Amino acid sequence: MSDAILVVNAGSSSIKFSVFLDRDGERAIDPLLSGQLEGVTTAPRFRARDAAGTLVAEQHWTQPLGHNGAVEHIADFLREPLSVHRLAAVGHRVVHGGLAFAAPVRLTPAIVAQLEQLIPLAPLHQPHNLAPIKTLLTNHPHLPQVACFDTAFHRGQTEIAQAFALPPVITERGVRRYGFHGLSYEYVASVLPDYDARAAQGRTVVLHLGNGASACAIADGKSVASTMGFTAVDGLPMGTRCGNLDPGVLLYLMDEMQMDVRAIETLIYKESGLLGVSGVSSDMRTLLESAEPRAQFAIELFVYRIALALGSLAAALGGLDAIIFTAGIGEHAAPIRERVCRAAAWLGVTLDPAANNAARGAARISTADSRTAAWVIPTNEELMIAGQTRDLLSRLP
Amino acid sequence: MSDAILVVNAGSSSIKFSVFLDRDGERAIDPLLSGQLEGVTTAPRFRARDAAGTLVAEQHWTQPLGHNGAVEHIADFLREPLSVHRLAAVGHRVVHGGLAFAAPVRLTPAIVAQLEQLIPLAPLHQPHNLAPIKTLLTNHPHLPQVACFDTAFHRGQTEIAQAFALPPVITERGVRRYGFHGLSYEYVASVLPDYDARAAQGRTVVLHLGNGASACAIADGKSVASTMGFTAVDGLPMGTRCGNLDPGVLLYLMDEMQMDVRAIETLIYKESGLLGVSGVSSDMRTLLESAEPRAQFAIELFVYRIALALGSLAAALGGLDAIIFTAGIGEHAAPIRERVCRAAAWLGVTLDPAANNAARGAARISTADSRTAAWVIPTNEELMIAGQTRDLLSRLP
Repeated sequence: MSDAILVVNAGSSSIKFSVFLDRDGERAIDPLLSGQLEGVTTAPRFRARDAAGTLVAEQHWTQPLGHNGAVEHIADFLREPLSVHRLAAVGHRVVHGGLAFAAPVRLTPAIVAQLEQLIPLAPLHQPHNLAPIKTLLTNHPHLPQVACFDTAFHRGQTEIAQAFALPPVITERGVRRYGFHGLSYEYVASVLPDYDARAAQGRTVVLHLGNGASACAIADGKSVASTMGFTAVDGLPMGTRCGNLDPGVLLYLMDEMQMDVRAIETLIYKESGLLGVSGVSSDMRTLLESAEPRAQFAIELFVYRIALALGSLAAALGGLDAIIFTAGIGEHAAPIRERVCRAAAWLGVTLDPAANNAARGAARISTADSRTAAWVIPTNEELMIAGQTRDLLSRLP
Repeated sequence: MSDAILVVNAGSSSIKFSVFLDRDGERAIDPLLSGQLEGVTTAPRFRARDAAGTLVAEQHWTQPLGHNGAVEHIADFLREPLSVHRLAAVGHRVVHGGLAFAAPVRLTPAIVAQLEQLIPLAPLHQPHNLAPIKTLLTNHPHLPQVACFDTAFHRGQTEIAQAFALPPVITERGVRRYGFHGLSYEYVASVLPDYDARAAQGRTVVLHLGNGASACAIADGKSVASTMGFTAVDGLPMGTRCGNLDPGVLLYLMDEMQMDVRAIETLIYKESGLLGVSGVSSDMRTLLESAEPRAQFAIELFVYRIALALGSLAAALGGLDAIIFTAGIGEHAAPIRERVCRAAAWLGVTLDPAANNAARGAARISTADSRTAAWVIPTNEELMIAGQTRDLLSRLP
C-alpha cells in the first residue's frame, strides 16, 4: 500500500484531478490516474484516464451537477482506485496567495479565511479554487489539504519588479504585479538542471504558451520578472485575452462606447487575443491551418509580442542563456517555436529546424553552437502540486 | 526682411510660441524669440526671451485671459518684433493626426473638421491644439497654417507594431498604438547623421525623458516601435502618469474602489508616476536630491522600466547600435543616464562616466570602444515644426 496524493484544480466550470502515488522512501512520485469533470453547471461530462492515457471512465449528464455534486462524483469514482492505497493528502491549485503566501500552506479554516480575503484580487478564479477545499474541510476535517499557489514562485522578485507606478493609496491595497503560472515555472525550473546545467544556474526565460500565456525571467532557479501582472489578463496576448493594453483604451471604451466594467471584462478576457484578432479561433492549431489573412495576422501579433517580451525579460536578467518553451502551444506548435526563435536570433538563439520539427517531449531545439540555448520542456503543474504537498506534509510534525 | 515662421504649441492651460527666421536661400532656420503664456484660465503669466535666452518681456494678470485673450496678447506682443519681417506661416503642434495624417498638412476648415473628429482619441489635448488654429483661420484666412503631428512619425510602423490584441469591432474605431513625441523623435533622427552615421543608418532607441516620457525604436531613420500606445499614458512611468498598467487594475479600481472613469483618469494621468510613487515630487531634480526612500524607489522604478523598454525595443529592431537620451531628464540628469547605461551593459553599452558627467548639449557618453554607442542629443520640437512648416509650404504651389 502506497500513499496517494490527490491533486485538485477547480475552475469556474470544471474540476480537474490527478492521483499520484508516493512510494515510501522513493524520491519520485508516480501518476496513477487523472480526469476531469467539465460543464459542471451546464451539461456535465466526466472522463478519467490511467497513467498510460487509457480512458478508464466516462459519464455524461443532461442536468447540471453543481460544484458540490461534481466533488461528490469524483470522490465516488476515486473510492475504488484508492481502496488499495492510503489517501494521504489533497493538494489544491490556488491561483492567488497574495503577499502572505510565498510557499505552499497546510489548509485550515483560518487559512481558508485568509485566502477568501484575496477574492477581490482574482474574482474569476479564487472562489472556485476554494470551494472544494471548504467542502473537504467540513466533510473530512482530518484529511490533510495543502494549497499550492500560482503566485508563490514570483514572491521572491524585487519590490521594483512587483511595482506599478501608482501611489501608495492604491498599491497598499495589494495592487501590484503578482505574476501567475508560477507552478508551471517552478516545475520547469526544478527539472532544468537535468537538461541544461548552465541555463539552470544562469539566466533563462520560460515561455508558458497555452490558452493562457505568459513568460518568466528566471535567474539561478528564481523568478526575477514575469509578463503577467496584477491579473492574468496582462502581458502576452492569449487565446481570448488581450495581454498588455494601454490603460487609456479602457477610458476610451467607457467614454466613447459607454461600456461598463462587466462589458470591458468580457471584451478583454473572452473576446480578445487570438480569437478576437483572427475572428477565427482561439486555438493555435486552427489558426496555423487557416488561410484567413486575419488568422495569420493574429499569429504574427502573438509571435511579435513574445519577441518583445523576450527582450524585456532578457533586460531584467541582464542577458540570456536559454529560452524554454512549455505548455500546449510551446510543447506542440513547432512553427510558433521556429518563428519565436528566429525573432530571438539577436539574443544569440540559433534554431536547429530539424530538431524543432522532431521535438517530442523534452528536447533541445537550438544548434550545438547556439550561444543561447532553446529547449522544449513539457510542464507538469499537477506533479509540482503533488510534490509540494508531499514535501510540506513530510516537514510538518 | 526675412520670412518669419511662428510655431505654436497650445495646451490646456498654456500657449507656447517660438518665432524662427527663414533666410532666403539658406537651409538653416534661425530662432528669433520664444515665450509662453501660462495659467491662461487662472492667473496668467507671460514671458518671452530672445534667441540668446534673455528675458525681453514679462507680464502678469490677476484675472484669467481665456484662450482667445491669450492668443490676442501673443499676437499683440509679436507685432513689433515681426514688423521688420514677413510672417510667412504658422506651424502648430497637433498631438493627434490619427491614421490619415502621416505628414504635416496645410490647414483649411475642412482639415480642421477632420482633426476635430480625432478629439475622442486625445480629449485632453486635441481641442486645445485646434483652438488657436480656428481663431487664426477666422481672423487671418490668408495666413498659411500647418499642422505638425506628434503621431505622424510613427505611422510608418508595421500594422503589427500598431496593433492591440483586440477584436476588429474595437480596433476599426481607431483603437491602436499611435505613439507620440513623434516631432521630438523625428528631430533627433534628422540630426543623428551629424553625430553617428552608423547609428543613423542602423538601429537606435531614442529615450525621450521629460515630464512626459517615452522611447522609440528607430531603424534607418524610421520609427519601428514606441512605448506610448493609444494614448500618452502608456509605456514608461512619467512625472505624474503611470505608464504600462495591467488593464485588470482598472477593473479592480471600478469594482473594489468604486472609482469612475474621471477618477481613474485623474489617478493615472495626474497622481501616478514619479509623483505618485515617491509622494515627493514629479520633478526628477527634486527626487535626485531627496533622501526619502520613496523618492529613491521612484527613481529606481523609472530606471528599471526604461531598462525593460530598451530590451523590448531592441527586440523590435533585432539588435541595437545606439541609445540616445533627450528631453529634460535625458539631457540634464546625468545620474539617470548613468543608471540606464549600466542597466544596458548587456546590450553592449559601456558608459564613459566622465563624458556623461561633463555632457552639455550633444555629446557621446559611451567609451570609444563601446559596442553600442550612447549619446545625449538635445531635442528641438519647435525647430522641427518650423522646418516642416517651411518645407511643406515651399512644396505647395
